[in-house]
Amino acid sequence: VKMKCRTTTLFCIFLAESIASCAAFGWKVRVWRNHGSRPKVNRDGRHNGWKCMASVHGDQRVLNTENLLDHCKMLNSYKTTDFIPFSIESEQLGWLRKEFATRLHSLQLETKQKVFTFEWPQCSEDGSSFMPGNVGLHENLLSDHPQLHDRSAAVNDMVKVLFERGEMRGWRGELQQVSSAFNKPPALLLERGCVPYFGVAAYGVHVNVLVREERGTSVWIAKRALTKATYPGKLDQCVAGGQPQGLSLTENVVKECEEEAGIPQQVAATARPVGAVSYMYATNKGLSPKTLFCYDLEVPRDFVPRALDGEVDSFQKMPIEEAMRSVADQVDMWKPNSALVMIDLAIRHGILNGDEPNYLEILSLLRRKG
Amino acid sequence: VKMKCRTTTLFCIFLAESIASCAAFGWKVRVWRNHGSRPKVNRDGRHNGWKCMASVHGDQRVLNTENLLDHCKMLNSYKTTDFIPFSIESEQLGWLRKEFATRLHSLQLETKQKVFTFEWPQCSEDGSSFMPGNVGLHENLLSDHPQLHDRSAAVNDMVKVLFERGEMRGWRGELQQVSSAFNKPPALLLERGCVPYFGVAAYGVHVNVLVREERGTSVWIAKRALTKATYPGKLDQCVAGGQPQGLSLTENVVKECEEEAGIPQQVAATARPVGAVSYMYATNKGLSPKTLFCYDLEVPRDFVPRALDGEVDSFQKMPIEEAMRSVADQVDMWKPNSALVMIDLAIRHGILNGDEPNYLEILSLLRRKG
Repeated sequence: VKMKCRTTTLFCIFLAESIASCAAFGWKVRVWRNHGSRPKVNRDGRHNGWKCMASVHGDQRVLNTENLLDHCKMLNSYKTTDFIPFSIESEQLGWLRKEFATRLHSLQLETKQKVFTFEWPQCSEDGSSFMPGNVGLHENLLSDHPQLHDRSAAVNDMVKVLFERGEMRGWRGELQQVSSAFNKPPALLLERGCVPYFGVAAYGVHVNVLVREERGTSVWIAKRALTKATYPGKLDQCVAGGQPQGLSLTENVVKECEEEAGIPQQVAATARPVGAVSYMYATNKGLSPKTLFCYDLEVPRDFVPRALDGEVDSFQKMPIEEAMRSVADQVDMWKPNSALVMIDLAIRHGILNGDEPNYLEILSLLRRKG
Repeated sequence: VKMKCRTTTLFCIFLAESIASCAAFGWKVRVWRNHGSRPKVNRDGRHNGWKCMASVHGDQRVLNTENLLDHCKMLNSYKTTDFIPFSIESEQLGWLRKEFATRLHSLQLETKQKVFTFEWPQCSEDGSSFMPGNVGLHENLLSDHPQLHDRSAAVNDMVKVLFERGEMRGWRGELQQVSSAFNKPPALLLERGCVPYFGVAAYGVHVNVLVREERGTSVWIAKRALTKATYPGKLDQCVAGGQPQGLSLTENVVKECEEEAGIPQQVAATARPVGAVSYMYATNKGLSPKTLFCYDLEVPRDFVPRALDGEVDSFQKMPIEEAMRSVADQVDMWKPNSALVMIDLAIRHGILNGDEPNYLEILSLLRRKG
């Protein structure tokens, strides 16, 4: 067992535990140290972020694909029968919980407005097939762009009543464009607070920052700032962010590369689009379908990322194999959707392959049906 | 217009046509010549295989993703409501056409045998959800491996009656292992001729043979032998083949690399698994779910593939961009599922990206739900 770390006593105690359990299986263990100026230890005495990044060398153990599969399933957990499509002119924009659709229906009867139409899920007459139903817009609100703002106002005004009554939470006073597919013109401008209830798609970009080294390819991993509102201290791609309206994907990648990791524009512009990961999961409010456009960006060996916007606590470079093992063994250390992007990277780089059990199921869970 | 080809008069006439139509759009045209000893011309006077491989340079035209999407949809065309799952002990092995299930049911009543169980698709009592039904095995045939051969004999004997009566076609007298997932032990040994009727999964390996050149990455493309039973003369990956039982994926890749393209073992062994493409389409007999494990194999610049087994007519090297354009513009030149593998390659190498319309839909169609 080789140990290379600069650490506090508490951290050592924790490591000793991990190493003991690894050693018990006859594995060689190396411990990743934090790339920051000194290891950071949380209030509870645990080293946050890199704490479990004990990597395992020299063993022929296959990856724990059962864990990877479970993680992919967790991010794809929903029963379509709990939801009704939300469509305008046969283009689906989202999904509504049945209960939420029922509530909207009651409200519409109560207020005598004409905003939504409701077709409830039902079976065909011969019982051999099933129609999933639909929530749509009243015909007065249909037709093209001249109507977009009127239509959106009618929808948002009606739903606002539920926020005012305290039956829905999170009004933001901000509109989001909603369309039936990425890059399509919006069919509706929906109050942001309503998005989780209407099961509308969200998009982001994730960049794998890679270094080609003699021993193989390494990947720069970020530990999210401890002050972040979401997933503080979790491991993440070096560069990742939501896809705003009005920027192309490439423009957004270049912008995020600069802000999040100090990667110069001319380097960032060589980022290669390599696919997308998509998933969908149920929440209390509704359904959350997300798509992350993935990029591989090769940087020079001597490049070291710098966080310019305070979103990252520290960066760490490690071989893809080790990063993948960390996802497989300790997925809780990772921001959940960034773990999916890591799995996709490992698949494309041949770290995870068809001889491993669960491979095909994992593969299909990385792309929900479009 | 630069022309570089050694050709027959007939071929020239054909090319002149293509070039004229390209030139009409102001594109620069370069014509690929056949890599074989001399261009081959079919009986109808058309140069088979490379005939439409006129490549288009210097234009900023985006790829015709509408065509790519149509092709992906074509290889994923089925209505699940036409089929009933075929499952043993709640593990799904395949799908049966409703008509075929009904025919089996009648036969079972007629012959008074106890082989299959039938649950027909139906709605829940409240009409709000749907059970897709199931064809399963009679409880006498359930349990573990000691029963595998008895169980299989019962199934095959019963179905054989329909072959003998001429109601099913294609008895092969050969058994195929059927399981609920790749690499799982078989739950049934099914006569090969029955496979298309039972909608059982099939697997293959496809290898993209790549050359890293100064101008970018090129790919070796094969034109299938004109004597092949399936898709003669169509374009294909350099190396591709079905996945036989008893070989690992890697062993199969190495074997096929040698047989189909004369790639030495030590080079073939560096093939990198990069994912899989899966699709499913309806046929008259039933449903056909296929999975192709994809590999990228980098070969030296001076390497030229050689067909050792007579399956390939000729090989052609071209930049990935041009091969992709050929798929987008003239997909009929390609073996249908090899076109999918080409699309997957183009996505992973950044030729097709999220700024193109239909990107996400194409992406999701490359992996059917597991």
